[in-house]
Amino acid sequence: MPEELSVIKNRYELAIVGCGPAGLAAALNAKIRNRDFILLGSEFCSPKLSKAPQIDNWLGFPEIGGEELRQRFLNHVKEKEISIVNFKVTSIYPGPPYTLMGKDKSFEADAIILATGVSASKLFPGEVELLGRGVGYCATCDGPLYKNKSVAIISYNSEGEDEANFMADICTKVYYIPFYKDLVRLDPRVEVKKGKTIKIRGDRTVEQLDLGEEQLAVDGVFVMRESLPAEQLIAGLEMEEAAIKVNHKLETNMPGLFAAGDCTGQPFQLIKAAGEGGTAALQAVKYLDNLK
Amino acid sequence: MPEELSVIKNRYELAIVGCGPAGLAAALNAKIRNRDFILLGSEFCSPKLSKAPQIDNWLGFPEIGGEELRQRFLNHVKEKEISIVNFKVTSIYPGPPYTLMGKDKSFEADAIILATGVSASKLFPGEVELLGRGVGYCATCDGPLYKNKSVAIISYNSEGEDEANFMADICTKVYYIPFYKDLVRLDPRVEVKKGKTIKIRGDRTVEQLDLGEEQLAVDGVFVMRESLPAEQLIAGLEMEEAAIKVNHKLETNMPGLFAAGDCTGQPFQLIKAAGEGGTAALQAVKYLDNLK
Repeated sequence: MPEELSVIKNRYELAIVGCGPAGLAAALNAKIRNRDFILLGSEFCSPKLSKAPQIDNWLGFPEIGGEELRQRFLNHVKEKEISIVNFKVTSIYPGPPYTLMGKDKSFEADAIILATGVSASKLFPGEVELLGRGVGYCATCDGPLYKNKSVAIISYNSEGEDEANFMADICTKVYYIPFYKDLVRLDPRVEVKKGKTIKIRGDRTVEQLDLGEEQLAVDGVFVMRESLPAEQLIAGLEMEEAAIKVNHKLETNMPGLFAAGDCTGQPFQLIKAAGEGGTAALQAVKYLDNLK
Repeated sequence: MPEELSVIKNRYELAIVGCGPAGLAAALNAKIRNRDFILLGSEFCSPKLSKAPQIDNWLGFPEIGGEELRQRFLNHVKEKEISIVNFKVTSIYPGPPYTLMGKDKSFEADAIILATGVSASKLFPGEVELLGRGVGYCATCDGPLYKNKSVAIISYNSEGEDEANFMADICTKVYYIPFYKDLVRLDPRVEVKKGKTIKIRGDRTVEQLDLGEEQLAVDGVFVMRESLPAEQLIAGLEMEEAAIKVNHKLETNMPGLFAAGDCTGQPFQLIKAAGEGGTAALQAVKYLDNLK
């Protein structure tokens, strides 16, 4: 178990999933309100902000550089002694309490704020339909189910290679479809394929990965994205126009589950995301108070 | 007509009412999107912010003083060449286009963002019930209706004295109930009364102003607050828990009318207000585009 994971407790009042502006703003308010919370992020928070040459509408600070603002955001939470725990949630089971699952670890939370942003990549045909029936987001989690079977791993970063290497020990056949340049540490037993027009096929469970030019017979398909599409994280989450459906209080259709930032839909703007994060935290605090 | 009012055009695409963080953030986005808009404010924007000794959750700028942040907000819009027009809207007539009324001037707008904040003072009993039937917010606007009649003016600042002086020329009797210290320029014909427990009474129209210790027979009551309660500005605006009811897109129940910031309800926080202002502006832009 990576050392960082060992600091994760078994239960929190509140879990904030995502470390972009919405997640950070939520964490600030959760801290100010003195709640027992965890802020889950990735190695590099808010890559989109980092790439913005200039932000014009962060009120009070005209023409500030995206990376400068990002650093200020991160320093602010650091100053308030808020840690960003590098933990990728692969699925959430409804509660109460909710259970957050990831590689090597799961834990509980009474309330959750989803601040997962928007995924640049679209879902593949068949991905939604076959989720949990051969489609998954954590190969090592589901590994035992695929002993002596064939799987394919589609990955947007080199982390997917670790997953593929792990599966190579268990499975009869592992295919790897990278959507990034330069493989880093892929096991030679894994067979690399090119993916252009990907479709996941199967009647009741996954049977085939269709790469357009080639069809692979597989029992499982794992997709490793930078961030998971929110609707794939938790079953039953109501969506609207490809975004998590929330009301003005940032409540989703599930009690205790809030969402903030780009994942709640357009406009995809910093100030909207931060405002929603701050609000969602205070609504979550109100929700937690009412639980007592 | 004060010089400032002469710059107001007869029609805009968008009117933003209020110059707190929500109004300013809305104006920034309206400017960036190159819309024909007007930002209506008062002499002193965001007094609450000014009084905050320290703001802890303006993401990226820890422990900043309230007045410093307020100055930064104002400088930001100034840098973007956005003027804050000192014009108090006293009522809005539904459209399209909407008509915004104030003292000495009215104009039209295809869309409106209400960012009027929360009023520190509560409404008086009878104020809602008798609005438009003796209760009003601009004595000089309604003056002719009260010729040779009796009126009372309740005011939270010295601007009310101008209203009272104007009415003294027309009415048989003018009472003045100040909720501030030190009268500045009140006409001696106006009779000052003390207000403690104020009630406005009347069956179909205003008949009496009940000051607790004393009852005044009047035909009209004018209330001069720093900002108007939003639900009093426009008839038919749907409210919820004493706030303007909006959905996640900051739409009210009236097409083209958006609301942002404290006037949409709790939490009363800067980052929430600014985020909503920014979002409301982009939603208004989308609305305006669809009108074409």
